[in-house]
Amino acid sequence: MSATTPAPVLASTETYVEVQQFYAGQVHLLDTVQAEPFAATFTEDAVFDHSPTAPPIHGRAAIAREVAAFHQRQLDGERVQRRHWFNMMTVFEHPDGTLRTHYYALIVVTRKGLAVPVIAPSCTVDDVLVREDGRLRTRTRKVTPDQTIG
Amino acid sequence: MSATTPAPVLASTETYVEVQQFYAGQVHLLDTVQAEPFAATFTEDAVFDHSPTAPPIHGRAAIAREVAAFHQRQLDGERVQRRHWFNMMTVFEHPDGTLRTHYYALIVVTRKGLAVPVIAPSCTVDDVLVREDGRLRTRTRKVTPDQTIG
Amino acid sequence: MSATTPAPVLASTETYVEVQQFYAGQVHLLDTVQAEPFAATFTEDAVFDHSPTAPPIHGRAAIAREVAAFHQRQLDGERVQRRHWFNMMTVFEHPDGTLRTHYYALIVVTRKGLAVPVIAPSCTVDDVLVREDGRLRTRTRKVTPDQTIG
Repeated sequence: MSATTPAPVLASTETYVEVQQFYAGQVHLLDTVQAEPFAATFTEDAVFDHSPTAPPIHGRAAIAREVAAFHQRQLDGERVQRRHWFNMMTVFEHPDGTLRTHYYALIVVTRKGLAVPVIAPSCTVDDVLVREDGRLRTRTRKVTPDQTIG
Repeated sequence: MSATTPAPVLASTETYVEVQQFYAGQVHLLDTVQAEPFAATFTEDAVFDHSPTAPPIHGRAAIAREVAAFHQRQLDGERVQRRHWFNMMTVFEHPDGTLRTHYYALIVVTRKGLAVPVIAPSCTVDDVLVREDGRLRTRTRKVTPDQTIG
Repeated sequence: MSATTPAPVLASTETYVEVQQFYAGQVHLLDTVQAEPFAATFTEDAVFDHSPTAPPIHGRAAIAREVAAFHQRQLDGERVQRRHWFNMMTVFEHPDGTLRTHYYALIVVTRKGLAVPVIAPSCTVDDVLVREDGRLRTRTRKVTPDQTIG
């Protein structure tokens, strides 16, 4: 018997691809500003730490309100289409059953009528994913923009 | 017996990865301007709706002609190297046996001698893929540039 | 019996995903400037042909020195955070047991305090990967920046 904690292991093929499809679906909901369905891809008690200069968002309802508020600001101001791009993702399965992902993100922002988007910021993201009723959900997300590093 | 139509399901691990490799190969042919081999990744009767401001291209031969014409315009004018980047892809298997993909695309355009490319436009793409003689082919493609939305 | 060489085949689902996770981990080491662990993802005798205008780097120790030298230049000058993005990857298994990958790369460079990164250059990359003690390693890498083509 060993007292050491089992080490995290790289996700299986099936889990890695499941995570890729999970994020694709989650991001499509975010970028089409579907606040409630997007928030439903997080756990009820999720913590979304989206910026080092703002307090984290606590809970699914607050996440939905934040996305809806973003949408309202859009309707009041200049229309932009945002696209979140994720890449270079590692997925580790931890002994507690969670999945821990680390990946790069870029946000592509297009203004109506202008073909060339602004692509910024570049970030790294660390998520903890859990399985609820057979489907993946994000329990915590920490976003670190590259311009804040160092 | 139910009269309801079976719902689309997320693609299996194997199919998802097969689709990823299919697109990588298809894009390499496009970006190296191999008109005929690129067109051969579409079905004979494919419909390629590449722009909301132009009529769709009908059929594999017309797709090949369009790629070759692009190449000729390049030879006549300024040389650029294009790279198509796809990301955030969902793949659904439909009851009729087709695969329906939804994904983001960016086109990276580099001019000879200039290190910094122009990255535009940002688009979403919806494809219907079918299997012919054991290999995937694109039957329809609809491209929606972000600057045309809303 | 045929005297012809067996053709390369597209990588299996498991291998393709393993390669994706391998590159994600390798790139995280590079972009966090962990010179020795990054170099350890190459074989002892690796050849890294990183530019058409410079001689290739030979061997793991030289690769580590190059990454460390880059880090030192950063400490002496302006701080930037680099992120390597890979995409549109094909993976072929060759009869000799190697894996040959072809993919697109972009380097995203963020300056401290500036949200908008410079994204350049756009490249294609050709790697030969081998398995050593059960883990993938890069044996050769050839980088071709798009602005040098044609």
